Amino acid sequence: MLTEDLDTPAVVVDLDVMEANLRRCQSYLDHHGLALRPHIKTHKIPDFAHLQLRLGAKGVTCQKLGEAEVMVDAGITDILVTYNIVGQAKLDRLVALARRADIKVVADSTAVVDGLSATMSHAGLILPVLVECDTGAERCGVATPAAALALGEAIDRAPGLTFRGLMTYPPRNATAKVQAWLAEAVDLAGRAGLDVAVVSNGGTPDLFHAHEVTAATEHRPGTYIYSDRSQVEINQLGTWDDCALRVHATVVSHAAADRCVIDAGSKSLSSDLLGLRHHGHIVEHPDWEIRSLSEEHGQVHVPPGAAAPRVGERVTVIPNHVCVVTNLTDRITAVRKGRVETFFAVSARGKVR
Amino acid sequence: MLTEDLDTPAVVVDLDVMEANLRRCQSYLDHHGLALRPHIKTHKIPDFAHLQLRLGAKGVTCQKLGEAEVMVDAGITDILVTYNIVGQAKLDRLVALARRADIKVVADSTAVVDGLSATMSHAGLILPVLVECDTGAERCGVATPAAALALGEAIDRAPGLTFRGLMTYPPRNATAKVQAWLAEAVDLAGRAGLDVAVVSNGGTPDLFHAHEVTAATEHRPGTYIYSDRSQVEINQLGTWDDCALRVHATVVSHAAADRCVIDAGSKSLSSDLLGLRHHGHIVEHPDWEIRSLSEEHGQVHVPPGAAAPRVGERVTVIPNHVCVVTNLTDRITAVRKGRVETFFAVSARGKVR
Repeated sequence: MLTEDLDTPAVVVDLDVMEANLRRCQSYLDHHGLALRPHIKTHKIPDFAHLQLRLGAKGVTCQKLGEAEVMVDAGITDILVTYNIVGQAKLDRLVALARRADIKVVADSTAVVDGLSATMSHAGLILPVLVECDTGAERCGVATPAAALALGEAIDRAPGLTFRGLMTYPPRNATAKVQAWLAEAVDLAGRAGLDVAVVSNGGTPDLFHAHEVTAATEHRPGTYIYSDRSQVEINQLGTWDDCALRVHATVVSHAAADRCVIDAGSKSLSSDLLGLRHHGHIVEHPDWEIRSLSEEHGQVHVPPGAAAPRVGERVTVIPNHVCVVTNLTDRITAVRKGRVETFFAVSARGKVR
Repeated sequence: MLTEDLDTPAVVVDLDVMEANLRRCQSYLDHHGLALRPHIKTHKIPDFAHLQLRLGAKGVTCQKLGEAEVMVDAGITDILVTYNIVGQAKLDRLVALARRADIKVVADSTAVVDGLSATMSHAGLILPVLVECDTGAERCGVATPAAALALGEAIDRAPGLTFRGLMTYPPRNATAKVQAWLAEAVDLAGRAGLDVAVVSNGGTPDLFHAHEVTAATEHRPGTYIYSDRSQVEINQLGTWDDCALRVHATVVSHAAADRCVIDAGSKSLSSDLLGLRHHGHIVEHPDWEIRSLSEEHGQVHVPPGAAAPRVGERVTVIPNHVCVVTNLTDRITAVRKGRVETFFAVSARGKVR
């Protein structure tokens, strides 16, 4: 079957492009002696996680326990869950996972550490915990290297836990700041006698500057597997040709000269803008602008002089943010050289708990 | 089980509130002699569609064939699909549906009509088709009443099709304009000898002004079943107490005095703004602002003087746009008076084709 014969909207991944993206990142991090721990939130597909491991990744990253459960069920055993685990229901699931695989988690408060410690010590387990550090992104994470040391010492003392190191999701274009923050925290922890075995940095936007953060021991990119419009247009990371995942759509309405409607709306592309204008890049018509989305309609502005749309015409959209696109679809279609090779279930889709 | 014992994030529907919303709308439309054809895109649950029918709805509305297939499989037989059906794969599915149920569709171009006609006449079926009219929303729909007449006549002439009437998704706060448009189109069609059996108007925002569009014979609200922040804050439709669907979340991080993080991000709430600032209304803390979302993090600004967050604290979020929330979850939890009654699979979730 040819890609163009797929019914639309269809989420299509070019495996050749995807594999090149994986190899490029692995080579770069290998060259700099950094471990790769890819974030599976972008693809949510166990087969792709296994491929990342075969190509050299040390383990994987999950954001929620539900994702980790899917990966452990698929035979993946080295997992860092980069999220504060709060509440007894999740702590009980974490115990079950920790009995089956090498699970590490993060914490940014004593409240989280206390919950982990009580449950793990009761279960007779020792759970490795990293301190999440806010190096400038202002989301989760302790605010200062001194606070990282204090929480690291609390983890070190806590029954059922062992201090493993530091983790951050960094702000963009700030590798010097991230390096200074982490180096200071590593230094403080080392002088206090803590063993900082892992310093885990993350993100695709500054992926190829990861070596500038010399305090780090590993990197956790997610989006690099597929890339997307935000990587190309905002982060200048590669080109459209590196975008492995695309949403194939059809023009279904052309009711006025200056606009048309495609059959991919917010249920296919999501409404994430990530600071971009409009809702995706149309490969065949870069001058058409997807100005707004409703759930099933992509509303396209056709500027004067652009090619006129035709009802039934197919277009290929590179989405703004690829991670949220895969969360909207139950399966992706895998192609090579324009031919359908197979389908993959997006098994870890929708795992918000 | 108590609602507060559900693990988070959890999408929770209060059935008492939901049923009151359904009855209020049905009574209003009954009073004005308008048929109710609820749009199932908001709930995507066959049991709730059956409830709407038991309470007096004439049939249901679906946006895509995949939704209609789920509803027909569940025994619902009167369905209007308010979307241009384009491409042979979908036309073949439409034939299969039309053999099993009373399916009506819309069209806004001769290209769509030609595709429908060729397939339906080949299958030996007669498909009712409504002309989609752009009464000001500038999405799909023919641009003028004269164009509606011309397309209606094309449908009337087309083998395999029968002209059923007019359909519009109206702009907001414009009932007089919508009425004038539709009345003119009905008049033109009537004088040309076409039988305008149905004039289908839609939307929840102006639901309780539906009677002002006297040209209409039916109304297709969707969001009214659950309501949401956009209905309360933008459309002044009811109060927070009428919001039947809420996302229960937990504070997982409080790393700085002026902010915290809840475990509901764009994978739970979606990033739809619908013209609103921030990403949902927190019932317990109306002064907290969900300023940004990443996939698993809701980043909350806590203003000076507001109650300080506590890690582990539960909050209840009324989302900006409820239809996209249900598309993100595989099931909803149904409660009454704070107790869990049952769960419902969101069977028509993710049906983009």
